[in-house]
Amino acid sequence: MKESHCIFSIFGATGDLANRKLLPALYYLEQEQHLRGSFKIVCIARRAISEEEYIKDALNSIRKYSRIKVREDLLNKLASRIKYFKLGLSNEGDYSKLKDFIENLSGEECCNCERIFYLAVPPNLFGVVADNLKKAKLAEKEQSGNAYNRIMFEKPFGHDLESAKELNDKITKVFDERQIFRIDHYMAKELVQNLIVLRFANSIFEPLWNKDYIDHIQITVAESLGIEGRGEYYDKAGAIRDVMQNHMMQLLTLIAMEAPKSISAADLRYEKLRVLKAIPKFKKGSIKGIVVTGQYAHGEINSRKVISYTEEHEVAKGSKTETYAALKLKIDNSMWRDVPFYLRTGKRLKDRATEIVIVYKKVPSPLFQKVNPDSNMLIIRVQPYEGITFQFNAKVPGNKVIVDNVNMDFCHECKFGPNSPEAYERLLYDVIVGDQTLFTGWEEVESAWSIFDPLIEAVRNTMPHKYEAGAWGPSEANLLIENDGKKWVEPKKPDYAELLNS
Amino acid sequence: MKESHCIFSIFGATGDLANRKLLPALYYLEQEQHLRGSFKIVCIARRAISEEEYIKDALNSIRKYSRIKVREDLLNKLASRIKYFKLGLSNEGDYSKLKDFIENLSGEECCNCERIFYLAVPPNLFGVVADNLKKAKLAEKEQSGNAYNRIMFEKPFGHDLESAKELNDKITKVFDERQIFRIDHYMAKELVQNLIVLRFANSIFEPLWNKDYIDHIQITVAESLGIEGRGEYYDKAGAIRDVMQNHMMQLLTLIAMEAPKSISAADLRYEKLRVLKAIPKFKKGSIKGIVVTGQYAHGEINSRKVISYTEEHEVAKGSKTETYAALKLKIDNSMWRDVPFYLRTGKRLKDRATEIVIVYKKVPSPLFQKVNPDSNMLIIRVQPYEGITFQFNAKVPGNKVIVDNVNMDFCHECKFGPNSPEAYERLLYDVIVGDQTLFTGWEEVESAWSIFDPLIEAVRNTMPHKYEAGAWGPSEANLLIENDGKKWVEPKKPDYAELLNS
Repeated sequence: MKESHCIFSIFGATGDLANRKLLPALYYLEQEQHLRGSFKIVCIARRAISEEEYIKDALNSIRKYSRIKVREDLLNKLASRIKYFKLGLSNEGDYSKLKDFIENLSGEECCNCERIFYLAVPPNLFGVVADNLKKAKLAEKEQSGNAYNRIMFEKPFGHDLESAKELNDKITKVFDERQIFRIDHYMAKELVQNLIVLRFANSIFEPLWNKDYIDHIQITVAESLGIEGRGEYYDKAGAIRDVMQNHMMQLLTLIAMEAPKSISAADLRYEKLRVLKAIPKFKKGSIKGIVVTGQYAHGEINSRKVISYTEEHEVAKGSKTETYAALKLKIDNSMWRDVPFYLRTGKRLKDRATEIVIVYKKVPSPLFQKVNPDSNMLIIRVQPYEGITFQFNAKVPGNKVIVDNVNMDFCHECKFGPNSPEAYERLLYDVIVGDQTLFTGWEEVESAWSIFDPLIEAVRNTMPHKYEAGAWGPSEANLLIENDGKKWVEPKKPDYAELLNS
Repeated sequence: MKESHCIFSIFGATGDLANRKLLPALYYLEQEQHLRGSFKIVCIARRAISEEEYIKDALNSIRKYSRIKVREDLLNKLASRIKYFKLGLSNEGDYSKLKDFIENLSGEECCNCERIFYLAVPPNLFGVVADNLKKAKLAEKEQSGNAYNRIMFEKPFGHDLESAKELNDKITKVFDERQIFRIDHYMAKELVQNLIVLRFANSIFEPLWNKDYIDHIQITVAESLGIEGRGEYYDKAGAIRDVMQNHMMQLLTLIAMEAPKSISAADLRYEKLRVLKAIPKFKKGSIKGIVVTGQYAHGEINSRKVISYTEEHEVAKGSKTETYAALKLKIDNSMWRDVPFYLRTGKRLKDRATEIVIVYKKVPSPLFQKVNPDSNMLIIRVQPYEGITFQFNAKVPGNKVIVDNVNMDFCHECKFGPNSPEAYERLLYDVIVGDQTLFTGWEEVESAWSIFDPLIEAVRNTMPHKYEAGAWGPSEANLLIENDGKKWVEPKKPDYAELLNS
C-alpha cells in the first residue's frame, strides 16, 4: 500500500489531543496494519525533552487512552516510528532545521514520501505554521505524480466569514484544496456515515425522502455537560458558532442532499454545497420566529446541582453569549420547498443526545381519520444508543380497532458490537489514504458562514432566554415549533437501551 | 347494548370445539361484560343428559381451557345463562320442540330477541340443520327492524365450487348474506387484523405498496404438525383445499387489495373480491412452473422421529394427496401487474410459521451498485413470534464502506403483552354485535373456488414430490421461485424471540 509511505508530523505533540486521541489512534492503525514500511511519526513541540523521554510518555498515553487492548510488541513497533523534534511555532529557523530533519529521515528508503502535517495547536496559530511551512519549503502545492503533502486541522475555521477567509488564504498559499483536510469529527461517527447508506442503499427510504412525504425534520444536538473549563473560548463563540454552523450543517446537508453521482469526496461535497446554497439568507431584523437563543441558569442534572453559565470560570459577568439555540430553516429547492427543518443545540440540557427525526406527513387515507393516527417517524440516533427507530401505527389487541404508535428498532451495538472505530482512527486512516470524503470542503465552510453571519449578528445584542440547567432549553424554543402546529420530539432512551452495557 | 339481548344456540354443544373454544370464549365475553341482560346460551346436542350435568361439564371445560384466570362468581353468572336441549340433528320434530323452547325462553323480557346459531357440527350436516331451521320456522330472513337472526360456521365451505354452491343454496334459503358468518379463524389473528392498520394508518408503507416498488411477495403457512388424526378428512382435502384456498387467499387479499372506502365489512369484501377476480384463471395442463405439490415422507422434527403421510391412520396406502403446495400467482391489475406472489403451505415442515414477506425492488441508485445491497424486506410474522421486521442495509463499522443487511424489529408481545384475545373470543363478539368484517363473504368463497378448481383438477392425478418430514418441502418447490431469480425467505426466529417467555 503505497500511500502509507509517509511522514506524519504532529504540531503540538505534547498536548491533550495528541496524547488522548492521536497517539492511541495511530496505535490502532498500527494494529490494523494500516501503517506500513517506512511510515514515520514526527512529534513536534516546544518542550525540551529527549526523544526517549517523549516516546516513554507517548506509550504511556497510548496504554492509558487506547480503547483497544494494547499489545507490547505492536507498541514497540509503533515506538520505532516515532521521532521527537523540538520547535518553536513562530521560530522560522526551527522550520529549516525541521526540513533537514524530515529529509534526512526520509532517506533513500522513501524517495517519494508524502508528508502529512497535523495541526494540534490553537487555531490562532494555524496561519503562523502555514506561513513557516511555506517559507521553509517544507510543504509544496500538489505536484504531478501521486505523492502529495497534506495538512489537517480542526474547527473553528474562523469565527465569521471574514476571519475564515483570512485563515483559508494563508493555508491555500501552501496547500491546494485537495491537500487540506478540515476535520469535523461528527462526520466520523458511524451513524452519520450510515446516513448515506441508509438513504441510498435502501429502496424503501429514498422515494419518500422529499417534500411530498415528509412534514418536517428535526435535528437535535443536546449536551448535558456545561462548557467544561473552555469559558474563554466559549464566551466568544456561543452555541451557534460552536455547534450549529459546523456540525449541524454537516448533518443537515447529509440529510437533505440529493443523490450524489458517486460517494467520492468531490461528488458528495458538490451535493452538500448545493443544499447550503439553497438555504435562503436570513435577513437581519426578521429573525422573529426563526431563531431562539437561551443561556443556562443554575439547576440540577442527574441529581447534581450545577452553576449558571455566567458563574462559570472565564465567562463575562453579564455575558449575552447563547448556550442554546433553536433555529428554523428552509431549503428552497424542488426537493424540500416548504418543509421546515428545526435545529436545536444546547449545553446543560436534560440529556446528551444527537438525534435526527424525520417526521412524515399524516397518512392521506381517510380510513383511520377518526382515530387520527400519529405521524410516522424515523429517528436516527447518532449518539448515544446508536441506532434507528421507526415509529409507526399498529392495532392495539382487542375487539375494537384502536390504533397506537409502536416502534421498530435497530440497535447498532446489538448487531455490530460496542467496538466501533473512534473518530480519530477513521480520520487519520482517511488522511493517510487521501480520502477527503469525511472532511469539510472550503466552499462548505464559506457557505455556512455566509448563512450564519447575519444570524449571529442579529442575535448578538439580544439577551438569550434563561433556562434552568437540566431542562430542554427555554420555553420560548417550544413556541418556535409549536406555532407551526408541530412539536419537538424529545430524545428518549430507546427500548433496546436495556440490552446494552453502557 | 341492545345487540346482546340474544339467544346464542350451539349445535354440537358436547363436542371438542364447544368445550375447548366456544365455552371458554363465552366466559371471556362474560368477564369483559359483553354479555348483558337476557343473553342466553342454548346448548344443543343429542346426548341424553340433564341440564345440571351439562352445565357441570361445561364449567369444567371452561376451567380447563380458559386462557384467562376464571372467577367463580362470573362462572356462576355464565352458568345461569346456559340451557341444555337434547336434539337429533336430522329429527324434524326435535326442531319444533326447540322452537317452543327458545320462544318460551325468550319470554317477555326479550320481545325482540336475536337468535344466533353456531354450527359446531360436521360440515356435511350444515345443510340438514339449515333445512330443519327453516321448516320449524326457527330462523327467518332478515326483517325490517334491527333484530335479526344469524348463523355461523367454519370451513370447509364445500370441497369445490359446485359443492360450495350447493351448501350455500341451502343456507341462503333460510338466511340472507348479511346473516351468514363464515368463520376463517386466520382473520381473527391480531397480526392479520394489523395488516389493514399497517397499510392504511401509516404514510410510509402505502406509497410503495405496488408494482413500482415491490419485486415480489411471499406468503408462507408452515406447520410442523402432521394431520393429527384427521386422516379421513385430510386425505380427501389436501393442502390446497385445507389451507391455500381459504386462509391464504384471505391473507393474500388483505395484502393486495386497494384501499377500501371504509373498514366496514361491505367495503372490505368489495376490495378483497376485486383482488380474487383479478387473478387470472389457471389453465389445466399449463401448471408447470405454477404449482409444485409435495407429500411428506418419514423424517425427524425436533429430534423426534415421525412417520410418513401414507403411514398415517385413515390415509389411503398409495395416496396422491398433497401435504405441501407451492404456488406462483399473479394479480392482473394496474397495482400488481408482473409482481409474482409466491404462496406455500405444508405439514411436517421444519417449523411452524405463518409469515408474509414483502420483497422490495433493488435500490435504483447507482451509488452502491458495486456492493450490490440486499433487497429491503418487510416481514410480517402472523405466528409465532408475532411482529414485524424490516430488513434494510446499513454500513458495517470500520474504515471502508461495507454494506450489510440489518433488522428493525417490532415485537408485538413485548409491546402489548402476551394476552391477545383468542380467535373465538373475537369472532363470537363480532357475531353478537353483528360485525361481518372478519368473516368471509359468499362471493369470496365462490371466487376462490373458481380459481382453485382447475388447479386442484390438474394436480390431482400427479404424484406429489416426496419430502422428508422436517425439511422445508420438496426441492422442486425451490426451483419454482429460483427459476425467476428469487429465493424463498425461510422463516427464522427473530432476535426478539429471546425476550419472550414462549
